[in-house]
Amino acid sequence: MTDHRVLATYLIETPYPLERAAQVMAGEQSTGTFISVPGETRELKARHGAEVVSIQELGAYSAPSLPECYLPPGMDKPVYRRALVKLSFPFHNFGPSLPNLLSTVAGNLYELREFSGLRLMDLDLPEPFAIRYPGPKFGIEGTRRFAGVYDRPIIGTIVKPSIGLPLSEYGSMVRELAEAGLDFIKDDELCGNPLYASFEQRVEVVMAEIERAADRTGKKLMYAFNITGDIDEMRRNHDIVLAAGGTCVMVSINSVGLPAVAHLRQYTELPVHGHRNQWGAMTRCPLLGMSFTAYQKLCRLAGVDHLHTNGLDSKFAESNESVAQSINDCLSPMLGGYTVMPVLSSAQWAGSAATTYEAVRSLDVIHLAGGGILAHPGGTAEGVRSMQQGWEAAVQGIELNTYAEEHPELQKAIETFGRK
Amino acid sequence: MTDHRVLATYLIETPYPLERAAQVMAGEQSTGTFISVPGETRELKARHGAEVVSIQELGAYSAPSLPECYLPPGMDKPVYRRALVKLSFPFHNFGPSLPNLLSTVAGNLYELREFSGLRLMDLDLPEPFAIRYPGPKFGIEGTRRFAGVYDRPIIGTIVKPSIGLPLSEYGSMVRELAEAGLDFIKDDELCGNPLYASFEQRVEVVMAEIERAADRTGKKLMYAFNITGDIDEMRRNHDIVLAAGGTCVMVSINSVGLPAVAHLRQYTELPVHGHRNQWGAMTRCPLLGMSFTAYQKLCRLAGVDHLHTNGLDSKFAESNESVAQSINDCLSPMLGGYTVMPVLSSAQWAGSAATTYEAVRSLDVIHLAGGGILAHPGGTAEGVRSMQQGWEAAVQGIELNTYAEEHPELQKAIETFGRK
Repeated sequence: MTDHRVLATYLIETPYPLERAAQVMAGEQSTGTFISVPGETRELKARHGAEVVSIQELGAYSAPSLPECYLPPGMDKPVYRRALVKLSFPFHNFGPSLPNLLSTVAGNLYELREFSGLRLMDLDLPEPFAIRYPGPKFGIEGTRRFAGVYDRPIIGTIVKPSIGLPLSEYGSMVRELAEAGLDFIKDDELCGNPLYASFEQRVEVVMAEIERAADRTGKKLMYAFNITGDIDEMRRNHDIVLAAGGTCVMVSINSVGLPAVAHLRQYTELPVHGHRNQWGAMTRCPLLGMSFTAYQKLCRLAGVDHLHTNGLDSKFAESNESVAQSINDCLSPMLGGYTVMPVLSSAQWAGSAATTYEAVRSLDVIHLAGGGILAHPGGTAEGVRSMQQGWEAAVQGIELNTYAEEHPELQKAIETFGRK
Repeated sequence: MTDHRVLATYLIETPYPLERAAQVMAGEQSTGTFISVPGETRELKARHGAEVVSIQELGAYSAPSLPECYLPPGMDKPVYRRALVKLSFPFHNFGPSLPNLLSTVAGNLYELREFSGLRLMDLDLPEPFAIRYPGPKFGIEGTRRFAGVYDRPIIGTIVKPSIGLPLSEYGSMVRELAEAGLDFIKDDELCGNPLYASFEQRVEVVMAEIERAADRTGKKLMYAFNITGDIDEMRRNHDIVLAAGGTCVMVSINSVGLPAVAHLRQYTELPVHGHRNQWGAMTRCPLLGMSFTAYQKLCRLAGVDHLHTNGLDSKFAESNESVAQSINDCLSPMLGGYTVMPVLSSAQWAGSAATTYEAVRSLDVIHLAGGGILAHPGGTAEGVRSMQQGWEAAVQGIELNTYAEEHPELQKAIETFGRK
């Protein structure tokens, strides 16, 4: 037994009195069931029950956010109140276990019919989690060391088309990008171990080009190979990358699950690039699922070194405020460590740097541009250069068009991507 | 290369023309990016592009279901159209890989700003998935063999209180239930390997009672021990259960991820009881996430032998129609096998049998009652008997109150649980 507690903050919406609704959550996720049972003694409740720490009412609405919510008996004109509810769970109910923590703080309670909305907003975890899950093995500093990039963002791209590129073209694209001085490439999340070109073959072709370019330029491009797969396959893929001299592995966090990421964390000798595809399903309904603030803590515990956040002005359905918050979440310390590098992507180009720097005031990001580099009219080398110039302008506080006057690669980028 | 395809059906909502929106989905999840790149040739698109198979318009709405959807330029009074869209993906893009399938059919597309709603409704998977993922190892038949229960539902309960019960009381509760002729007990999903009473200790205490009762009654109760944990811990927990003579292991599917379940499937020597907590977060917003029809196929591929579906008239926010559909989904054949036993729970009692049997006309269910057995006024033994009587009445088509006239345990159940 310990006195540690886990604090979980929820945004709820309910037609029931807020105090009652909060008690239902606390009961369902600890000692209660739908009817009192003999064993649920006062002592047991005191030792193992979740507690309502605070309730902060936010507003009232006439329509429910989610269907299938039940009304209190006799309520004709329902009012759905929203509130931030903080619950405290006894740590000894589950111990330092990510999956069992999830079953507790994010389990059946999403289905409780007393709620027309329920979203996990934040988590505060006690120290023992840090012992069981040491977190990112390399973090920001380790990633910079592998990539050889300091004092500026790591500029990267994604191989496009996402899927289907023959290996010969793959190789020449990587060669071109590596020679152009790019820092980082990631596989697309759609490209894991496809049947038409195996993972082994892709690693062999890509690493040969990277090593050859490094011999010439003295700089070894970091390539995040998408090792997403079943448990044993991920280890096999990791070992293939390591043996080939690769410096990063990528995993689709939600496709494999947090325990699979934590398992990878145990044996990885390379930074883990965490892709969050499917995240939209967890977060796009504002009154359901999970906030990124809670999610990124879980991902950091599991041990990713990089974590996708979307970029500002992306093609995805997320406001710039939300993206900036996500980036700042990743850059906020947690449990005395756990540095994780935010990864900005989607419809990014040289002009995204200024917006990004203004919003987060940090250079500790991986900034990915797909089309923004590969579709640059001057070719990929100029695309890379334009990205670097975009950040130079941002950091120096020089207006983009002004900086572009003496930087033709940036000028072309503005003409191509800035007019949309 | 193969000609196999994966078919995915989506419910979408969008202010864009439906054909255009469907093409955006297909492009984003195969060969496209936000701007044309040189390598996306016509030949590559033909071989690796996802195709729009069909679009079935469902209706038009004036308000969006999800926020952050972008409007087409010049659209003042937006109309949000809903449709069922069927896409076909080339199987060779990802191969027979559950996690990479997920990244493709349920990945970034949830975040596309062209949509105010997007939900995966169904999946049709080609034969090679059946080779890589052989599915439930024991299924309905194997479970019945282990439990020694044929020609009627497997009646079970959950140890309540969910968490905190001292091991001594745990033991006497299991003893009482085993002696009462109960078929099945599952751990609560909140109780994995808590600090106050370790998994090993719980298994030891529980199995001692089960074996002792089996010696007396000739019937060995099936107990689903919650082995949910990190990857290696799950294997360790499975081995503990097996060594102690246990006959079932339980896992919280969404807490560990499908690859962890598939990993467990490789080595398990016991039926896997699949708990779906957190499912509400994936499904409660009607225009987001995933339908159970798609979800249960993924879970069956991963290899669970039992799968939670909620019960009818449960305390959860789900209509009876939806629950009945879920149960029928589980009982529908898939890829020539993959029998999975639906698990009905939440606020169940003897009277739930009639409603359930009427809706699904099958006895191949595990029917769990927590309070409905443990809080029976005649004690747990009468609670168990009342559940069996409820099913006897249902199968024989006898009205519950009539059957209760000569079955006092059922009568007491009606008086206690039927008046709510």
